[in-house]
Amino acid sequence: MDTENQTETNSECDLTSKSCSTPNEYDGTKKAQSEQEQRLTLKMNKIRHKIAVISGKGGVGKSTVTVNLAMAFAMQGHKDKVGVLDADIHGPCIPKMLGLKGQTLIGGPGGMLFPVTGKLGMKVVSMDFLLPNDEAPVIWRGPLKMKIIQQFLSDVTWGDLDYLLVDLPPGTGDEPLSVMQLIPDMDGVVIVTMPSEVSEAVVKKSVTFAKQVGIPVIGIIENMSGFVCPDCGAKIDVFRAGGGKRIADDMTIPYLGSIPLDPKICNDSDGGLSFIVENKTSPATKAFLEIVEEIEQFLEHKEPSEKPAKPKST
Amino acid sequence: MDTENQTETNSECDLTSKSCSTPNEYDGTKKAQSEQEQRLTLKMNKIRHKIAVISGKGGVGKSTVTVNLAMAFAMQGHKDKVGVLDADIHGPCIPKMLGLKGQTLIGGPGGMLFPVTGKLGMKVVSMDFLLPNDEAPVIWRGPLKMKIIQQFLSDVTWGDLDYLLVDLPPGTGDEPLSVMQLIPDMDGVVIVTMPSEVSEAVVKKSVTFAKQVGIPVIGIIENMSGFVCPDCGAKIDVFRAGGGKRIADDMTIPYLGSIPLDPKICNDSDGGLSFIVENKTSPATKAFLEIVEEIEQFLEHKEPSEKPAKPKST
Repeated sequence: MDTENQTETNSECDLTSKSCSTPNEYDGTKKAQSEQEQRLTLKMNKIRHKIAVISGKGGVGKSTVTVNLAMAFAMQGHKDKVGVLDADIHGPCIPKMLGLKGQTLIGGPGGMLFPVTGKLGMKVVSMDFLLPNDEAPVIWRGPLKMKIIQQFLSDVTWGDLDYLLVDLPPGTGDEPLSVMQLIPDMDGVVIVTMPSEVSEAVVKKSVTFAKQVGIPVIGIIENMSGFVCPDCGAKIDVFRAGGGKRIADDMTIPYLGSIPLDPKICNDSDGGLSFIVENKTSPATKAFLEIVEEIEQFLEHKEPSEKPAKPKST
Repeated sequence: MDTENQTETNSECDLTSKSCSTPNEYDGTKKAQSEQEQRLTLKMNKIRHKIAVISGKGGVGKSTVTVNLAMAFAMQGHKDKVGVLDADIHGPCIPKMLGLKGQTLIGGPGGMLFPVTGKLGMKVVSMDFLLPNDEAPVIWRGPLKMKIIQQFLSDVTWGDLDYLLVDLPPGTGDEPLSVMQLIPDMDGVVIVTMPSEVSEAVVKKSVTFAKQVGIPVIGIIENMSGFVCPDCGAKIDVFRAGGGKRIADDMTIPYLGSIPLDPKICNDSDGGLSFIVENKTSPATKAFLEIVEEIEQFLEHKEPSEKPAKPKST
């Protein structure tokens, strides 16, 4: 174990600390870094809107929300024009939820990578596509995680997209910081929470995080909000209710809406089916479509005129 | 934002890469590190059993399980002899769940820190005790997180304890690696999952992680397993069922039991009440107490004779 951790520490040094290299190595590394940054900017300029989905707390259904928002965008006039980057390096769930398990990223000339394409022409990139099986953990410290996220942004042929949704792991550490730092003109973040007070306390940190790194908060979504017993129809607040709205009010950010707790969502996620495609009339689908409209309104407001590339958000 | 990230990168260099310091600084740092390691070993030697609670996936109720297991140990003959280290630096929930919000860690001579004491003499340490309010995020990369965890282990006067439970954030990155590396004789890990297949896939990674870093797997707990409608009594598998048992069978590790989904658990966590202390006869309490017995049996089997300090686990 000690040897392994030693390796980890060395990797950190190699990847982040320029003073650990000899001058020649340093020049070479610097050139490669600069070329990668240029590729990243070129790739990102071709994507109209970049939105990160975050939550302070894990397990609030952030990946489920990301997948269904992406599908909702695709269904509402953006077929073949939506991408999802699963930036959860340790626990990538997006491929399973989109029925893309077992697929791999195919490489092209010059280190190019092609995203996996799912239903409605969804472009998907995830660490999961690079792992041999479900049981393989990615035991990486932060700098290595930043490096792979950078590659996912700079070396993947995302193409011309209307929307790229970035699903981030919980917390305010390496992955969120890296994504916010790397994507040059992020439109904003969507914050997902669940109704419990414990979640509420942690999710507030995400709001402050977004404000501190200068990324606009598009709004907050409350997931797993109330449960209707399929046997008797009684409405039960399994995880209490109203936490999302309270955070929005307390921190003066937009409230995008609430998604009811529906066992079908979990079933469909497990089955790799897109819930909102399979259940077009359910209350949860209605909620997702309304939220997408809210997001589109936010983005229209944000940019009064048509533009091919935006200036850096502040 | 760039400035902030620059600072982050520099911190990584300072904290992990010895070659970034001048020789004198290096000697001083090395001496301080060695002294801290000695303090850590002394503190940890006074704690009979060290158990980490992990999960690949967030939001499976890991903190809830940790708090209730700790209380169960305290109730079953270990009053004043149980500690909880909340190693989730970005989203610390333990203080709220134990009704200890607003408390702070008090410092003593020589950089010593006193843990906060809760019900049944529970010793608790959490990043939350160092934050000015709920909204303050901890925007730290890995090396800084490792440093604070190290301080929590070496500089806190934990005293003579029978059990220290370490609640880790999800994933297999910096925090879990740091804890596994820092605690010299960890007894094992308890892995928490919820029944969905999506969780199952991610939690398997935790099992492999524990095996790869050479820490015994005490067993797996399935949380939020089935829901009984309080109105009509119908049993509904909100998040499906059986995922925990399947992982245990697939990966040949012990199955410790399942905790039913009970809205009271969420209410009590939010209210800072210990569920198992407040609801002594509920099925969930029964499940927690049975699991604690299983863990105790595992630990007895692990150590055939009485011993003050154990050799390093393999």
